Amino acid sequence: MNLNEAISNIKPLDRHVQERVWSRWDSLTKPRRSLGRLEEIVVQLAGITGSTTPKIEERYIVVMAGDHGVAISGVSAYPQEVTVQMVHNFLSGGAGINAIASVARAKVLVVDVGVAEKIETTSPYFRDYNVARGTEDFSKGPAMSREAAIGSIEVGIKVAEELNNSGFDIAGTGEMGIGNTTPSSAILSVFSPSTSLDILIGPGTGLDGEGIRRKRELIERAIEINRPDPNDPIDVLAKVGGLEIGAIAGFIIGCARVRKPVMIDGFISTVGALLAYRIAPGVLPYMIPSHLSQEPGHKIALEMMGLKPLLTLDMRLGEGTGSATGMLIIDCALSAYYNMKTFEEAGVSRNA
Amino acid sequence: MNLNEAISNIKPLDRHVQERVWSRWDSLTKPRRSLGRLEEIVVQLAGITGSTTPKIEERYIVVMAGDHGVAISGVSAYPQEVTVQMVHNFLSGGAGINAIASVARAKVLVVDVGVAEKIETTSPYFRDYNVARGTEDFSKGPAMSREAAIGSIEVGIKVAEELNNSGFDIAGTGEMGIGNTTPSSAILSVFSPSTSLDILIGPGTGLDGEGIRRKRELIERAIEINRPDPNDPIDVLAKVGGLEIGAIAGFIIGCARVRKPVMIDGFISTVGALLAYRIAPGVLPYMIPSHLSQEPGHKIALEMMGLKPLLTLDMRLGEGTGSATGMLIIDCALSAYYNMKTFEEAGVSRNA
Repeated sequence: MNLNEAISNIKPLDRHVQERVWSRWDSLTKPRRSLGRLEEIVVQLAGITGSTTPKIEERYIVVMAGDHGVAISGVSAYPQEVTVQMVHNFLSGGAGINAIASVARAKVLVVDVGVAEKIETTSPYFRDYNVARGTEDFSKGPAMSREAAIGSIEVGIKVAEELNNSGFDIAGTGEMGIGNTTPSSAILSVFSPSTSLDILIGPGTGLDGEGIRRKRELIERAIEINRPDPNDPIDVLAKVGGLEIGAIAGFIIGCARVRKPVMIDGFISTVGALLAYRIAPGVLPYMIPSHLSQEPGHKIALEMMGLKPLLTLDMRLGEGTGSATGMLIIDCALSAYYNMKTFEEAGVSRNA
Repeated sequence: MNLNEAISNIKPLDRHVQERVWSRWDSLTKPRRSLGRLEEIVVQLAGITGSTTPKIEERYIVVMAGDHGVAISGVSAYPQEVTVQMVHNFLSGGAGINAIASVARAKVLVVDVGVAEKIETTSPYFRDYNVARGTEDFSKGPAMSREAAIGSIEVGIKVAEELNNSGFDIAGTGEMGIGNTTPSSAILSVFSPSTSLDILIGPGTGLDGEGIRRKRELIERAIEINRPDPNDPIDVLAKVGGLEIGAIAGFIIGCARVRKPVMIDGFISTVGALLAYRIAPGVLPYMIPSHLSQEPGHKIALEMMGLKPLLTLDMRLGEGTGSATGMLIIDCALSAYYNMKTFEEAGVSRNA
């Protein structure tokens, strides 16, 4: 399915079903609305799926991987080869996302959207949907062509369709790409030109002050040279974005298209979500923001969509680690919704 | 064990073991400290238990239950009989805490410290350690005698000892007591006299503006009549506190005494924690704050101890629901600590 077909098939949530879920919550033995976000999440899941009995049995974390032309300019504490090395670490189960996804009972699917080297693996949890061997250095010209940008988005849509064909109830976004906080801050700056770059740029994997200054200069130059059009999100993605960021946007659009909830991970994922939202505003109610990262631009990106994260754990690892952790909060919400007794069943007096 | 014996046996955390846990974290395939609070929690658990391989297999939520003389004055949206009804709901598995504790694989133990009516049950998850059949109306005199206050604290210490004898790795605080945000706000106000009562008092289970005004007047009168001594935390507990709040404080002291981590639930539990901290400052590093409640005084109580909650879910149910949810975050932390590969094992390049 191409991008335009996907966009035109995104439906609003089912409000009728949501009202019925609120009624059940209000019948359970607790002060009204006292489970806060837990109640809201179940209502959201019901609206997304059109069912008063939503479930999140089959779970995936989808790690979109891509490399960045700017990575050679010292915008990361790690060398570019780490992207490939970490893809192998994901596939052999040794990374942070594997450890946390196993607690959350989620499978980890890794997608090569734009990794610089070909990945050699026979893992069933890998997809070779490479659009290009990394982006170009966006401080010298566009990061990618408009066709590649659309191609990266359509990779994400395809992955959501494939998961839907094999069956899934919820997915979380994740990413790997050395240097990818730099294009993320650049995209955010284009969409929020009045916000100082100082609060959109952070240390990423661990830059020092000198590194952050270099990152800032590169982003300023990239925006000046490429002049991305803030009213054309695909132009923004092409000129100052990244292939895995496009794929995250596409995956979110794809999840909305197939009416499945999608957890949003940290800073880079949220910038992908912002792109998806600018392309297709109807995706917004399908998103569940997971955590607030230490990367300073994350808060701003969330606020631009009115999203409030569930967790504040000072994490800044990416990979989908926030998404996976957040799924456990939904387990709590659904257990309360399904297993609590009503005031009548428990013989508890209601309030006056 | 009595209170003074418990206090004099609280030891500081094992810093040597904590350094070794930091070293392991820094060897794992992630940017340094990028798992934020997850890393800190494992370091904390290691320091508490004195082991570089901490575990949280045997888990309990301990729900301290008590009634309040002020409850008849319209400081709750619910009638006092709901305390007993909810105790039965906990014991038959129908409450919010049961639903969430089952996700967190925690057992729910209910302790009658000060319930107004005798609880008839044969449940093995109930302890009848009643100190008094509810507190007195503290707007007319002390809520309880100094002996009862110490008795309630020693109930908590006893429960921690019992759990330790049968074996446990982590416990979370919880409570049930219609009206108990009122003594909690009163205690907090005594400890923070310069803070306006307006930001220490909230709607509790769902008071309207008129109810909040009544609650404020009662608290002001209670403090004026009883003149609790802010430098004597047991005096504060006796004059404007509650029996279940004393038992929470004692349980935290008891957990520290037996070197076990204790999750702190919402507003009432955190006021109990503040009492424990004022009685025995050494308990502080044994506490793991779980969530930030919607009750406005909660943030202030946490800040008075320098504690940062893990979750912000707009919950205000109590019972231990935040504690149970927080245990799942620790599962994520421990899984990362035990299951991630090192840079060497995974063949991933380190940063420069």
